[in-house]
Amino acid sequence: MEFTEEFVQFINNNPLYTTIGIRIEKAVDGEARSSLDPNPNVCWPFPGQPHGGVLFTLMDATMAVAVFSSLEVGQNCATIHADIQYTLPAKGDHFSCAARITHETGRLTFVRGEIHDGENRIVALGQAAFRVIRSDAMEPS
Amino acid sequence: MEFTEEFVQFINNNPLYTTIGIRIEKAVDGEARSSLDPNPNVCWPFPGQPHGGVLFTLMDATMAVAVFSSLEVGQNCATIHADIQYTLPAKGDHFSCAARITHETGRLTFVRGEIHDGENRIVALGQAAFRVIRSDAMEPS
Amino acid sequence: MEFTEEFVQFINNNPLYTTIGIRIEKAVDGEARSSLDPNPNVCWPFPGQPHGGVLFTLMDATMAVAVFSSLEVGQNCATIHADIQYTLPAKGDHFSCAARITHETGRLTFVRGEIHDGENRIVALGQAAFRVIRSDAMEPS
Amino acid sequence: MEFTEEFVQFINNNPLYTTIGIRIEKAVDGEARSSLDPNPNVCWPFPGQPHGGVLFTLMDATMAVAVFSSLEVGQNCATIHADIQYTLPAKGDHFSCAARITHETGRLTFVRGEIHDGENRIVALGQAAFRVIRSDAMEPS
Repeated sequence: MEFTEEFVQFINNNPLYTTIGIRIEKAVDGEARSSLDPNPNVCWPFPGQPHGGVLFTLMDATMAVAVFSSLEVGQNCATIHADIQYTLPAKGDHFSCAARITHETGRLTFVRGEIHDGENRIVALGQAAFRVIRSDAMEPS
Repeated sequence: MEFTEEFVQFINNNPLYTTIGIRIEKAVDGEARSSLDPNPNVCWPFPGQPHGGVLFTLMDATMAVAVFSSLEVGQNCATIHADIQYTLPAKGDHFSCAARITHETGRLTFVRGEIHDGENRIVALGQAAFRVIRSDAMEPS
Repeated sequence: MEFTEEFVQFINNNPLYTTIGIRIEKAVDGEARSSLDPNPNVCWPFPGQPHGGVLFTLMDATMAVAVFSSLEVGQNCATIHADIQYTLPAKGDHFSCAARITHETGRLTFVRGEIHDGENRIVALGQAAFRVIRSDAMEPS
Repeated sequence: MEFTEEFVQFINNNPLYTTIGIRIEKAVDGEARSSLDPNPNVCWPFPGQPHGGVLFTLMDATMAVAVFSSLEVGQNCATIHADIQYTLPAKGDHFSCAARITHETGRLTFVRGEIHDGENRIVALGQAAFRVIRSDAMEPS
């Protein structure tokens, strides 16, 4: 799937991303980049620190977009498992996430991702496996 | 830490939980139960299905509360790693999560959790390790 | 697949298990039990403590047998991912492992396992996902 | 810890490595490389394919050596958790593993690793967290 600017904009307007503060920046050939400017509502229990679930959501979403960028029209993906490590307290109002496919078998796609804070320190590392499914869910009408 | 009704109510009013639709039901002696009535905003890309990151947030939050219920006043916990598996598409407007401590070393606490849908089918399974830290973050003033 | 005594004996004679000290005790309906009496050669770097990789091998093998016990003739399984946690230093000359299927989709099977030492303390916890494949590898001729 | 040639040779003569076929090649500044020429005994149930537990042992051992290379004399490390993904059936008689530290906090060290087959295809990917402990276990007398 090609991620045209129009398609990226379509995705970035979804209610989940806008509620949290996620933006996809780029997705091509199995690699994706995104950013998180966390809504204060999702910075709890530590003010100014996005919840670990918010970082996970950023990573899972970015991984899924990386997978999606290598799929055919009419295919989608679903996470089988994801393992995330938290290396540092995530402080600040801007984070970036990068994800890339490490291996594809046709039915399964393996991905790695990492999240950096605004000072380029790693705050989270992940690896996940996705299965490829038939679906039209993320496509614009 | 004892989870009095007042304290549970205090936690359940936090902006993260209310944004997503999470409620802690109970937490005692290293076990916790919670529910998710997902806000439609967090059901994307599949309408009626909470995002995988939302399920992860439910599980991580419930695990943390399970850990917290076994800590002393003045202690808190932080996730080192969490592994989550998605067994089924999570459909419906009500989910429940249970988490329990499997082992504590004093500095590290290991936890398992699972999420069921409204028909009591497992939709997610997880295991995580937390480190115990000094902090007052979740305590009412 | 039914695990007759003859079949269990056939499996337990394989060179991997005998090199390490693994024995399958039982496998039925998606649950399996096994034991480890570790060969001193695989107790390194700490004498009397089986290496973490040995405990992982015990758990992965027991999980695979649990999966296998629920498959049809001519099917086999392969690990997609496994996450293992080490809760305690594993000391002693006898360990037991239990594994059970948590969910099956037909193509994927999810499993949990745990290893106890001789004093019934948990030393390792795991969860894994397997894919179901066609193969005759573990079958007696 | 500096990994002199003498120390690497000392480690490579341990009974676990020689039983399986593991050799550490290099370990410096938080990075390690190793090889696996699997003993036929550990290639089961598929002849010519090292068991997944053997690949895990290779990865865990290489990760531990990477961690060890950044520790002080008198420190050692223990795996808290490790997540491994198997991307391809591991076929052949030679594999290489690379591991590197992704983050250190003093008490915790996070590591990533990967295993390639003889044709340089990724067969396994992993991430793990280690805790730093006091111990003299791996040191030559």
